[in-house]
Amino acid sequence: MNPDIMKERQNATFDVEKLTYILDGGPEKTKRRREIESMVLNDPDFQEEDPNFLSRSERYDQAVRKSAQMILKLREYGIADPEEIYCYKNMVRGNHHEAMGLHFVMFLPTLYSQCNPQQARKWLPVAESFQVVGTYAQTEMGHGTHLRGLETTATYDPATQEFVLNSPTISSIKWWPGGLGKTSNHAVVLAQLYTQGNCHGLHAFIVPIRDMNTHVPLPGIVVGDIGPKFGFSEVDNGFLKLENVRIPRENMLMKYAKVEPDGTYVKPPSAKLTYGTMVFIRSMIVGESARALAKSCTIAIRYSSVRHQSEIRPGEPEPQILDYQTQQYKLFPLLAMAYAFTFVGQYMSQTYQRISGDINEGDFSELPELHALSAGLKAFTTWETNSAIEVCRMSCGGHGYSRSSALPDIYVNFTPTCTYEGENTVMMLQTARYLVKSYQRAMAGQQLSGTVSYLNEAEHQRVQPQPVAARPTVVDINDLASLVEVYKLRAAILVALAAKSIQQELQRRKSPEDAWNNSAIDLVRASDAHCHYVVVKLFTDKLGEIGDTAIHSVMSTLALLYALHGITKNSGDFLQAGLLNVPQVLQISIRIKELLAQLRPNAVALVDSFDLHDKKLNSVLGRYDGNVYDHMFEWARRSPLNATEVHESFHKYLKPLRSKL
Amino acid sequence: MNPDIMKERQNATFDVEKLTYILDGGPEKTKRRREIESMVLNDPDFQEEDPNFLSRSERYDQAVRKSAQMILKLREYGIADPEEIYCYKNMVRGNHHEAMGLHFVMFLPTLYSQCNPQQARKWLPVAESFQVVGTYAQTEMGHGTHLRGLETTATYDPATQEFVLNSPTISSIKWWPGGLGKTSNHAVVLAQLYTQGNCHGLHAFIVPIRDMNTHVPLPGIVVGDIGPKFGFSEVDNGFLKLENVRIPRENMLMKYAKVEPDGTYVKPPSAKLTYGTMVFIRSMIVGESARALAKSCTIAIRYSSVRHQSEIRPGEPEPQILDYQTQQYKLFPLLAMAYAFTFVGQYMSQTYQRISGDINEGDFSELPELHALSAGLKAFTTWETNSAIEVCRMSCGGHGYSRSSALPDIYVNFTPTCTYEGENTVMMLQTARYLVKSYQRAMAGQQLSGTVSYLNEAEHQRVQPQPVAARPTVVDINDLASLVEVYKLRAAILVALAAKSIQQELQRRKSPEDAWNNSAIDLVRASDAHCHYVVVKLFTDKLGEIGDTAIHSVMSTLALLYALHGITKNSGDFLQAGLLNVPQVLQISIRIKELLAQLRPNAVALVDSFDLHDKKLNSVLGRYDGNVYDHMFEWARRSPLNATEVHESFHKYLKPLRSKL
Repeated sequence: MNPDIMKERQNATFDVEKLTYILDGGPEKTKRRREIESMVLNDPDFQEEDPNFLSRSERYDQAVRKSAQMILKLREYGIADPEEIYCYKNMVRGNHHEAMGLHFVMFLPTLYSQCNPQQARKWLPVAESFQVVGTYAQTEMGHGTHLRGLETTATYDPATQEFVLNSPTISSIKWWPGGLGKTSNHAVVLAQLYTQGNCHGLHAFIVPIRDMNTHVPLPGIVVGDIGPKFGFSEVDNGFLKLENVRIPRENMLMKYAKVEPDGTYVKPPSAKLTYGTMVFIRSMIVGESARALAKSCTIAIRYSSVRHQSEIRPGEPEPQILDYQTQQYKLFPLLAMAYAFTFVGQYMSQTYQRISGDINEGDFSELPELHALSAGLKAFTTWETNSAIEVCRMSCGGHGYSRSSALPDIYVNFTPTCTYEGENTVMMLQTARYLVKSYQRAMAGQQLSGTVSYLNEAEHQRVQPQPVAARPTVVDINDLASLVEVYKLRAAILVALAAKSIQQELQRRKSPEDAWNNSAIDLVRASDAHCHYVVVKLFTDKLGEIGDTAIHSVMSTLALLYALHGITKNSGDFLQAGLLNVPQVLQISIRIKELLAQLRPNAVALVDSFDLHDKKLNSVLGRYDGNVYDHMFEWARRSPLNATEVHESFHKYLKPLRSKL
Repeated sequence: MNPDIMKERQNATFDVEKLTYILDGGPEKTKRRREIESMVLNDPDFQEEDPNFLSRSERYDQAVRKSAQMILKLREYGIADPEEIYCYKNMVRGNHHEAMGLHFVMFLPTLYSQCNPQQARKWLPVAESFQVVGTYAQTEMGHGTHLRGLETTATYDPATQEFVLNSPTISSIKWWPGGLGKTSNHAVVLAQLYTQGNCHGLHAFIVPIRDMNTHVPLPGIVVGDIGPKFGFSEVDNGFLKLENVRIPRENMLMKYAKVEPDGTYVKPPSAKLTYGTMVFIRSMIVGESARALAKSCTIAIRYSSVRHQSEIRPGEPEPQILDYQTQQYKLFPLLAMAYAFTFVGQYMSQTYQRISGDINEGDFSELPELHALSAGLKAFTTWETNSAIEVCRMSCGGHGYSRSSALPDIYVNFTPTCTYEGENTVMMLQTARYLVKSYQRAMAGQQLSGTVSYLNEAEHQRVQPQPVAARPTVVDINDLASLVEVYKLRAAILVALAAKSIQQELQRRKSPEDAWNNSAIDLVRASDAHCHYVVVKLFTDKLGEIGDTAIHSVMSTLALLYALHGITKNSGDFLQAGLLNVPQVLQISIRIKELLAQLRPNAVALVDSFDLHDKKLNSVLGRYDGNVYDHMFEWARRSPLNATEVHESFHKYLKPLRSKL
């Protein structure tokens, strides 16, 4: 153990293990998680070379091997609880992805939710036994976010009782689905349904794409890998071009909508039913943000505690770089954010459970709120985390650029969350739509519930921000409840400002749609402020649940840092709205420095509490024992370029060059 | 040609070609640049597969081949002017790096500047004819920024008249130098010089590391590649461990400092002489920022003009995504920034030329200013560009993640500029040191010159920011001169605030060093504001040189957008200092929307003016002809995973899995 990091651990003012219990949801959960993790850890089948040393094809190969092994081992161990499966897979994957991920998260769930009973009898057994390996082919080269724009067609032919599927244009080629390129032999294809001369919009069809036995693409199917990406190297995101591919009528997923043998189209009973999955996945992504951020902070903070550099006081030994104020200012607000997002992730998953219970009982009342919240928080947390990972990486100096640090892998495998499952700007605008509607309802005298209820508070319905003097300032910058209030007022004012912008555009005789587009900057800003308020509020709420005094104290410091740092980063908003005055903003800057100093002794303990096993981090910089340099050297020596002492390029180019000059 | 992008070009209000001349420095320069570029373009030796399809070893191999070819071709064509060489190499490299880069930018220049005449006679001919291929080994595993902390030793042994080089610890292993791992047979090694029992600090030594004939590492040398990184895949950044490696006394570079045969150490005449190279490279990096940003904007804006998605007005065709206000708000300020940084890059390179002329005549007076400016602007422009590339990438939706977009390559190959040649936070603090010193000199009544002369203006020497009411606001938000003034005042106030923080720490009996560290957040903020002021000022100054009315008009709009957008992003600073009032900040938000709409018709023309050839962009999204989708499909089909229809992993894992369940 590196003596610096040992000393850090001795300096902690709280019990690391107890905080881990809080993060896991109780000591039993921690125990079970560790049990599951140790199954992977001690399993020789999951010993492997760093994927960074492999070619793309080898990485894919290794990922398929691991996918197949996981299936067998989960059955062998009888792990069936989704949370436990997630935990097991997370440990196997490390910072990378699963080759067969889409089969589990999209293909099977779609079959479960959209097969009618006959279809379920036919498809579930073969899909659950991996005779059929599938993916979910929705996105096309020309369309992602805008589902109505998708161009793939499925035209019903009553003569043969078949659908004929086609990709009528280049831009209609299915593009991006994970596992489509090489792994899957079937795909759920989303296509515009044509029957009896009419288009009935997007529907899902099970399309066999490769021979079950030989795996060779079927006639009319042009399928392959879309090529290398930023991250996701082990996943064969694929393309699929359909050329008059015929499938039986029964391959349309018909639990809700139907096409009769004669071609008659039968509408689904409700459109709301497909709402749930998106909300679920977006809620999950909030938790993914927290996990990616926790990993990044663990690596950067542990490394900053063992790295010595330069000097603060002449003549003294080089300080740990964590002693530099600028380093603390980079990392501690992100550490606070990691805790904030962890708690928000827990809240989202609990809220999803609760509301989906209501939905199963036919109560849809909270769905719009959940939909808006999951869209906005997905965007807010992924954007923040995306930048934060890079700050963590660059805070490690040169070594952060090495793949051995794991930070490049964490970044490239996280950043797609900003785009998939709903592009972030589009998500922010969806939340804004809900906020503006709620605002209008509040202005019309309706009583709102949920996180937007603050829009009812008449005091804040004035739209024009006021100069500082106009508002008697009663904010206590050391009181979290007071800060939650300030964030709430900021959100209320920015929602009102966006609504006012739309109003002004309408008065200039713009159409409602143009008025909306011409206010989009304000709308995104309002959503952002709303989400920020929700995060500060949920973090503050969480403190009420923490009984342990020492942990409560350090968590309060983190929450305060999160709230105050957010104010300084957006001080214009708070000053502009007259929510804070200039001396307060100056006080906050000074207070932040005090909080950094206060957190310093607990920094390593706070990342230790995330309890991220070295195998999961896979980072030489983030090692628990702090022995960074030896392991970096050992890692580098395994680099494929070191397989031979002399690279063949010397004989091919460098030596011949001499004689040519 | 895609009809959308054709229409965009017809809508431009200015002559694209004329703006290109301004960017190149005149029509002759544009002509010559294109001549050189076409030499690469039409050269079958530089036709190659996308490096993204190759393994690391193949990428390195290809890069060495290209390096060797470039050497031969530049001689063949007689291209010897450094600017023209740069231009030629840039075209060959595309978005990637040169395997032998360090030989040219560090090894040879070090020989030129630090060899004495005998050494020059011995080493230059062999280095210029590539018998000797070299690198510059300074950074160690444990030390980058802090040169005094480097641990490698060179101990003089008068008995044999040799230096004995050692890496005494793991952390002293040389780490990161480009070309060290596999390519170089020599290295300039920076080591602590010991002679006659005393340490004389860091000196440079020429160390043979591989056999000239066989390329096998020499005895005592442990050398290799440091492993895969975030970017720079074609470069063999290496490690070097020295175990009692003996080199002749004459291998110490002795133009300035010397060790006599008996071991007597002779000091160099001045330390300032090594200052110049760093300043030069940092100045160059400002230009690199501009180029990376221009590429990214070109890709994102062209793609946004051909990509259609969703709807603004119901029933109408899907709009170009460039018509969304949020998309304009993401991209146009970055386009403005690309122009701003281009002009700042030109200024830095001209200023460097001028001042290095002075230095050659013994006038060092402007060196501290240039040093501070190049450090700060290097940090400011690389940080801004680093984030901006990612905004451009994510503005392209899913396809921005594909390596075919080139944006991932641009990012990973640019981001190291934030760390190398001076870590950015350290750079900002160096600039801050100059600013605080200048402030103190101004307070002491001295007259300052150069960019910091504003610190003399007594009016702004008050350190306490004022509430809005205290300052009569005379800012015209449509007048660039007025905005330059506001940026200047912001910088002045933040420098004063940082100086005050130090003062207060000293009053609390902190040592000067602790006072500095405890004010570091404020110091970085002051430097940032200073650099931001310089950029706004230089952009504004540049407008004065533009005669063409149409170009002047569109450049003025860009400059205004740059300045106003910077204010909204930092509105807290301007409000806090009482430089702007709340109504003005609101007006600025509205004005920005007008400017976005105003720039919309010229957006494509403005990126066309950068005149970045398709071969240089290497992006299917950024193609000049806008034919994105066909080429994306064609690119994907060449992906190595598509070499066979059925990947071997099917037979190895997927098929066997079925029988095991």
